[in-house]
Amino acid sequence: MVMESMDQTQLKQLLEYVRDGAVGVDDAIDRLRHMPFEDLGFAKVDHHRALRHGMPEVIFGQGKAPEHLLAIATKLIERSPNVLATRTEPRAAEMVTERFPEAEYFPMSKVLRVWRDKTLHGKGKIAVVCAGTSDIPVAEEVHLTVEVMGNEYEVIQDIGVAGIHRLMANRERLAQARVAVVCAGMEGALPSAVGGMIGCPVIAVPTSVGYGASFHGLAALLGMLNSCASNVTVVNIDNGFGGGYVASLINRL
Amino acid sequence: MVMESMDQTQLKQLLEYVRDGAVGVDDAIDRLRHMPFEDLGFAKVDHHRALRHGMPEVIFGQGKAPEHLLAIATKLIERSPNVLATRTEPRAAEMVTERFPEAEYFPMSKVLRVWRDKTLHGKGKIAVVCAGTSDIPVAEEVHLTVEVMGNEYEVIQDIGVAGIHRLMANRERLAQARVAVVCAGMEGALPSAVGGMIGCPVIAVPTSVGYGASFHGLAALLGMLNSCASNVTVVNIDNGFGGGYVASLINRL
Amino acid sequence: MVMESMDQTQLKQLLEYVRDGAVGVDDAIDRLRHMPFEDLGFAKVDHHRALRHGMPEVIFGQGKAPEHLLAIATKLIERSPNVLATRTEPRAAEMVTERFPEAEYFPMSKVLRVWRDKTLHGKGKIAVVCAGTSDIPVAEEVHLTVEVMGNEYEVIQDIGVAGIHRLMANRERLAQARVAVVCAGMEGALPSAVGGMIGCPVIAVPTSVGYGASFHGLAALLGMLNSCASNVTVVNIDNGFGGGYVASLINRL
Amino acid sequence: MVMESMDQTQLKQLLEYVRDGAVGVDDAIDRLRHMPFEDLGFAKVDHHRALRHGMPEVIFGQGKAPEHLLAIATKLIERSPNVLATRTEPRAAEMVTERFPEAEYFPMSKVLRVWRDKTLHGKGKIAVVCAGTSDIPVAEEVHLTVEVMGNEYEVIQDIGVAGIHRLMANRERLAQARVAVVCAGMEGALPSAVGGMIGCPVIAVPTSVGYGASFHGLAALLGMLNSCASNVTVVNIDNGFGGGYVASLINRL
Amino acid sequence: MVMESMDQTQLKQLLEYVRDGAVGVDDAIDRLRHMPFEDLGFAKVDHHRALRHGMPEVIFGQGKAPEHLLAIATKLIERSPNVLATRTEPRAAEMVTERFPEAEYFPMSKVLRVWRDKTLHGKGKIAVVCAGTSDIPVAEEVHLTVEVMGNEYEVIQDIGVAGIHRLMANRERLAQARVAVVCAGMEGALPSAVGGMIGCPVIAVPTSVGYGASFHGLAALLGMLNSCASNVTVVNIDNGFGGGYVASLINRL
Amino acid sequence: MVMESMDQTQLKQLLEYVRDGAVGVDDAIDRLRHMPFEDLGFAKVDHHRALRHGMPEVIFGQGKAPEHLLAIATKLIERSPNVLATRTEPRAAEMVTERFPEAEYFPMSKVLRVWRDKTLHGKGKIAVVCAGTSDIPVAEEVHLTVEVMGNEYEVIQDIGVAGIHRLMANRERLAQARVAVVCAGMEGALPSAVGGMIGCPVIAVPTSVGYGASFHGLAALLGMLNSCASNVTVVNIDNGFGGGYVASLINRL
Amino acid sequence: MVMESMDQTQLKQLLEYVRDGAVGVDDAIDRLRHMPFEDLGFAKVDHHRALRHGMPEVIFGQGKAPEHLLAIATKLIERSPNVLATRTEPRAAEMVTERFPEAEYFPMSKVLRVWRDKTLHGKGKIAVVCAGTSDIPVAEEVHLTVEVMGNEYEVIQDIGVAGIHRLMANRERLAQARVAVVCAGMEGALPSAVGGMIGCPVIAVPTSVGYGASFHGLAALLGMLNSCASNVTVVNIDNGFGGGYVASLINRL
Amino acid sequence: MVMESMDQTQLKQLLEYVRDGAVGVDDAIDRLRHMPFEDLGFAKVDHHRALRHGMPEVIFGQGKAPEHLLAIATKLIERSPNVLATRTEPRAAEMVTERFPEAEYFPMSKVLRVWRDKTLHGKGKIAVVCAGTSDIPVAEEVHLTVEVMGNEYEVIQDIGVAGIHRLMANRERLAQARVAVVCAGMEGALPSAVGGMIGCPVIAVPTSVGYGASFHGLAALLGMLNSCASNVTVVNIDNGFGGGYVASLINRL
Repeated sequence: MVMESMDQTQLKQLLEYVRDGAVGVDDAIDRLRHMPFEDLGFAKVDHHRALRHGMPEVIFGQGKAPEHLLAIATKLIERSPNVLATRTEPRAAEMVTERFPEAEYFPMSKVLRVWRDKTLHGKGKIAVVCAGTSDIPVAEEVHLTVEVMGNEYEVIQDIGVAGIHRLMANRERLAQARVAVVCAGMEGALPSAVGGMIGCPVIAVPTSVGYGASFHGLAALLGMLNSCASNVTVVNIDNGFGGGYVASLINRL
Repeated sequence: MVMESMDQTQLKQLLEYVRDGAVGVDDAIDRLRHMPFEDLGFAKVDHHRALRHGMPEVIFGQGKAPEHLLAIATKLIERSPNVLATRTEPRAAEMVTERFPEAEYFPMSKVLRVWRDKTLHGKGKIAVVCAGTSDIPVAEEVHLTVEVMGNEYEVIQDIGVAGIHRLMANRERLAQARVAVVCAGMEGALPSAVGGMIGCPVIAVPTSVGYGASFHGLAALLGMLNSCASNVTVVNIDNGFGGGYVASLINRL
Repeated sequence: MVMESMDQTQLKQLLEYVRDGAVGVDDAIDRLRHMPFEDLGFAKVDHHRALRHGMPEVIFGQGKAPEHLLAIATKLIERSPNVLATRTEPRAAEMVTERFPEAEYFPMSKVLRVWRDKTLHGKGKIAVVCAGTSDIPVAEEVHLTVEVMGNEYEVIQDIGVAGIHRLMANRERLAQARVAVVCAGMEGALPSAVGGMIGCPVIAVPTSVGYGASFHGLAALLGMLNSCASNVTVVNIDNGFGGGYVASLINRL
Repeated sequence: MVMESMDQTQLKQLLEYVRDGAVGVDDAIDRLRHMPFEDLGFAKVDHHRALRHGMPEVIFGQGKAPEHLLAIATKLIERSPNVLATRTEPRAAEMVTERFPEAEYFPMSKVLRVWRDKTLHGKGKIAVVCAGTSDIPVAEEVHLTVEVMGNEYEVIQDIGVAGIHRLMANRERLAQARVAVVCAGMEGALPSAVGGMIGCPVIAVPTSVGYGASFHGLAALLGMLNSCASNVTVVNIDNGFGGGYVASLINRL
Repeated sequence: MVMESMDQTQLKQLLEYVRDGAVGVDDAIDRLRHMPFEDLGFAKVDHHRALRHGMPEVIFGQGKAPEHLLAIATKLIERSPNVLATRTEPRAAEMVTERFPEAEYFPMSKVLRVWRDKTLHGKGKIAVVCAGTSDIPVAEEVHLTVEVMGNEYEVIQDIGVAGIHRLMANRERLAQARVAVVCAGMEGALPSAVGGMIGCPVIAVPTSVGYGASFHGLAALLGMLNSCASNVTVVNIDNGFGGGYVASLINRL
Repeated sequence: MVMESMDQTQLKQLLEYVRDGAVGVDDAIDRLRHMPFEDLGFAKVDHHRALRHGMPEVIFGQGKAPEHLLAIATKLIERSPNVLATRTEPRAAEMVTERFPEAEYFPMSKVLRVWRDKTLHGKGKIAVVCAGTSDIPVAEEVHLTVEVMGNEYEVIQDIGVAGIHRLMANRERLAQARVAVVCAGMEGALPSAVGGMIGCPVIAVPTSVGYGASFHGLAALLGMLNSCASNVTVVNIDNGFGGGYVASLINRL
Repeated sequence: MVMESMDQTQLKQLLEYVRDGAVGVDDAIDRLRHMPFEDLGFAKVDHHRALRHGMPEVIFGQGKAPEHLLAIATKLIERSPNVLATRTEPRAAEMVTERFPEAEYFPMSKVLRVWRDKTLHGKGKIAVVCAGTSDIPVAEEVHLTVEVMGNEYEVIQDIGVAGIHRLMANRERLAQARVAVVCAGMEGALPSAVGGMIGCPVIAVPTSVGYGASFHGLAALLGMLNSCASNVTVVNIDNGFGGGYVASLINRL
Repeated sequence: MVMESMDQTQLKQLLEYVRDGAVGVDDAIDRLRHMPFEDLGFAKVDHHRALRHGMPEVIFGQGKAPEHLLAIATKLIERSPNVLATRTEPRAAEMVTERFPEAEYFPMSKVLRVWRDKTLHGKGKIAVVCAGTSDIPVAEEVHLTVEVMGNEYEVIQDIGVAGIHRLMANRERLAQARVAVVCAGMEGALPSAVGGMIGCPVIAVPTSVGYGASFHGLAALLGMLNSCASNVTVVNIDNGFGGGYVASLINRL
């Protein structure tokens, strides 16, 4: 795309020079070839404006020094109504919330969030399901994500394949979801069970919860990839944000 | 659900007996407790009728003896307009196509298909993308699946991250997709690149294509799970059907 | 089951309405369909009452905040005579034992236990065997579990396949067990040796004890899964509770 | 044990010599020390006679040459009423069934069996459950094993966590089992679901059925080891015999 | 780059229209935005012409049907002087060599090659070293690659770390290399030893040669990645082509 | 062995009773069967007295509480001239050295040692070789072990396959060894190089030293198992004690 | 080489004795056989003097005690103009910078460096590329290495495959590199994308940056080894020094 | 060593020239530096002549074409009295035995052997132990190796940790060994049990025998590396030759 290879103003001027005869055609081609690339904004072919509208800015907080995180957050909060920072350590969160009182910190999931534009973008409800109480931090990352991305959601906690009664009891609530995000550690079987009960897309989030041979979420991950329910897809271990993000995208369709 | 615990007729009769005084309330409770479970059909809470309408019947052909596969296929073909059998060996395919001339066999992907009801269910177009020519069999399984599930689709072949020119060249076509299914072996990086270019949900299908340290698709699988593009989710290695199925579900939303 | 779909009282009332003509049969079917699910207790088909009688309530303490654990423990201790919490950190244990003086804490295995109903449920003796002194914490979790579940048991410590004399010396004691739980780290060979000596079921618990290529219990786990003794089954690494639980179930048969 | 260190007759004679003064005490001690070890049979401390009574002789057929297998089988069939050979190739099976017409061969599970003593040893019924049709060969190895070991059993096929209706529908049948053996490949979640529904011991047999990231049964194995149902223990991948053997032992208790 | 977004002729014409006033500036910008992308050839910023000059066309033959491979090869052989196909099965090779008598087939490494332009591009000599005779097929893929890419090379076979005498004996020959490609299976230690002896860049190619715990080249791969010689870099298992390709690139610098 | 089944005095007495007619022969057999097992010491068939003479008592200190370690050490130090405790934490070491001033603590390798009997048992010299300075802690565990087991040894530090000059420079010293223990992390290639230079048995000790893809010693372990030198055998990762112990055994032959 | 087997002076003297008849020829051969090996310095066959000229001394700081590191550093700094210590803990760095004020410490990458001889040895520019901000510490290790080894370089940060615009925007800068070192964690796809855009050798450095299934850099490592760009070779996880070292070697050619 | 850098004759002549004044001392040094390396045979510092005397020539047959194997074998058989080829396919074996009638082929272990010099070199007896009948092929490779290397040996078959009676029964025979080689698949526990019973060095050979989670010998390998018996060292999976070779070396000490 021409639009990507230079600044719009520069491009316009060059074409005006060509029009006015100030620059020959071959010269123009040559100049085009050496102009600095600039993202013009308007240039992107974007058939998905609706999808992208109202997306929050996202910071992956893991491994970032508090000062560094504050700097990035400051820049984004000044520019965007909604900002989400994952895996933010308490000290960094404190620094941000001090400067921006509208920022909230959720210590369990270590999510830091500024949620100013609360427009609803999703067309239906997203079910956020988790197997055991230990999966709740990951599930919280999911629901904070889907919320800030403009979705209605319902959290259904602490149901597992070994307690089919509880699963059955929640069938009505599950059935009302347009998309489901299911978090589970250990054997990671819940997405299969949920996926078999409801027909909609299920995003499975393996969690690193478990003992011994769970190998930090590997058992759950493999279980989900091998799900016998065909409507299940999988994101990375403990990637609550990813699960919530994709669910939000789907819910905007 | 009561609806699941017994046959509707039985239930109705029991309630009529109660109404008529032929059976006491405590007796009725007791009988309810011992009635055989039956799936009544009408009993399922199904908010997703639209999603489920027109779904093909699916047979996982791997490891099934030809006679066994023929038996299952016969039963399903007689009952449903659309049937899809994955990983079907040629001999089994031949037996089925002999009996049902409308069945087609696709030897590259080993898919056997009966596609009689061609109603369109998907709302947009699905992009079926593959990295190298060796990924084409898996991509074929994807496009045969999305087609039989009533979707328009476009196949974009042989573009990879090491050839960004070709990727850029297909940007317009990619941008028209409502959902994308991206198949890649080796380092499995294509879903990230595609995911970064377009905003819609991307279903990544790792393929077992590769040498040495690709470890039969493990490298691609891990690459996709760790994608830096947030709109990517992953299905099992070589699971073209799964990728196509989920994409179709999403495209019906 | 009807019994699962609503509260018994509600059900009774509904049937009474039907009997009295206050609610028509079709209406009743409809209401049944929308009543909230409630576990009625009496409703479960339970041929295993004996098995389940006197089971302790169990809390998986790992990863739970002390306050959270206290809250759960309080609720369970008030309701049930016997409660067992595994992997409980000292601070949480202290909070519970302060409030409930009858609670005991076992720092080596990190088990917290309330054992008030000491009825014997097991029919024979359970042997709790461990290979080395480092496996004792896991073995302690086993014996505290089998004890609180109403079993006689005998702990046989510090015998290993490399010291066959000690193993032989304990043969009589092993032979008196109705079930054995064998904990071992490193190469995990003890269950095979014990399994070959006695005819009863052997539950193998791999422990994460070991150096280097023990890979946190993986070597022991694989060793046990590949046991050449046919009476050996395996639970998760360091899962002393699981081993004790299954042994107790078997001992009740 | 003295009983193990020499032949009973030799021992008796030696003691008689001592009694008669023909051999001095110190000499006797010395001779005891050098006598050849012999398994006397009566010498074994065996509190589990009941458990062991009526056990079949077992041959692990894998990797054995047909002639070799025939030789072993011949010896065992002549000596024992019941013989079971696992993973027997057709040619070896043919050689055995030719010589012993009462031998049966089950090609799906590759089990070869002589079942002459049909005494019932188990006290209850064993449920043999499998998730998908591809798991049937392993399930067949289970049921042939439990049958030849003198148990009543019921096979429940083709129920999975993604089809909770079918699982619920079989609850009554499952609930009648004293022990359950559950075979599943792919994500291996069925044992958890079954384990949560019924209170009895569940032996989980992971099968190597699956695609891609099932890694020849590893995903199912890990899933089962991490089961959230506490009554589940696990045997090796595809080890139907092992699952059936342990279930039979438990059912004799 | 403009150069990538459309055909050069189209671009020139558009600019001429602008010059001639036939198209307004804003219109031109708009048209630029919708013109089809085309690789113009001259448009690539290429500071590495020397590097790229005389590169052979390459076909990855693995998994390609003979007819398919013949079709691709035909197209490339007609267009380029030098063509290299790796992992070509004999039947495919035969089909190509029949049509193109100048094509050679090397059955040990399964390389098919057309080498017509024998210009020398490399500035020095490339040492192609292999540890054992079993590594020779991979080493052959290396030397056929560096040869067709215009390099002088020397093959040094069958020297290993366990035979330091042979290694020392070849020091002079190794020392004359500008780049070395070292192929080794088993423990993969040869690149470290060679890397320590000579100062130039060493490309390590792990081979899948080995027994048991070599795990199809994994041991060699890990060994090479952990090399204590700082001048060693690694390519994929058995990737002789990759090793030769990078060495050739370096030798052109 | 009779010798194992009871105490020698008891046995003698029983035989005297038999001799004196106080106990009948059948009674004697019966009593033998029920006497408690006791290890008589003299009873062991031991053709390896020389091998076992002067062996130190060994404590595996890892994971033992300081008080526990002190208790075990006290018991052993009072009974045996030489005691070796591996992986002993400083606090435990301090407690022991306070009570037993002759105990020495080596903080680098965390070995605690009492070495009072300095008799030489080995017939030749043991070479203790290590690749890099980071392997020295493991090498120290080796040399402290071989020393306390009565061997002459020579430590050769900091030679690696990437510095063949240094390796060659030490050839004479290596050649004088009767057994060699070679410690190496990273790619673990040194045992192969040493094994190729000298003809004697080489015990390879992989160390967990390394970065990234060394995976805590796995790369070194696999490298050593795949050694192309036939005189190399391997012990567990970081198991300096094991390497020194086996070398000492061999050196006593 | 004679040069390696003894001191030059000794050798000269021996030959003079031979010349003078003081030592017979056979005697001389015998003595040669027993002279101590000494590295004579001049003896090394070194065709790569240019390559080796101006190489810094390198210390691998990981796991070294501060005092130990200070001692080594002191020795090297006194002898060589340029010294680089990787993975140096702050306390050790402080001790060195106190004694040698010209030493600099870079806390992010933990590199300690003395850079006194700033001669340029590289012939072109090295591109140091990293995918995300979390990869910057590794990239810093790369650029500090290439700088101290006498190279011009350019750091290009924070471009990834999911942001192809940014990648394209940097194409000119990338194209000016003679060698590129590309650091990436997560899916490790950037080297493929860069490798496809520019023709020069690309050294890929996987970083341990990532969540869950990145398995501490394993996903990135496998991705890079399976790169579809043929000009990519790989070094160990987080091995920024190794990447910079090889790039420097290549840039001197 | 001078001895390595040139041929003995050349060296002698050069020294004679020096003696005769035909070559100056400095010239001589210079020539020495450029003479071709040749292994002179007498030049090796070899304190282990006894160890090396009578060693067979060994061919690793795996992956070698029959013609290639014949060529190597022919050369070695003509030169050496004893030759051993491992993993030799029947066709290659046939070609060799046709030409050399004294060659024997052992199809079970695929060993081809020429054993002409039957001198005894070992000082004691080697025990060759295997766990199950499936391990016999590997055990045969062991005993053929130790035999051709001049050792007395005893094969003890089919004893396992699950049958401690059989193990105890063989204690006397085991105790007579100077070294033991123990082959075992599945859980690989036999070396620990044997190692605990006898004091001599035990070489453990893991075999690839097993089902499912044995992962082709990995379970056995890990089990052996983690052996709780300190006298156990390990060689590669199925490496019977390696086990026999090291045992022979030790038995010569």
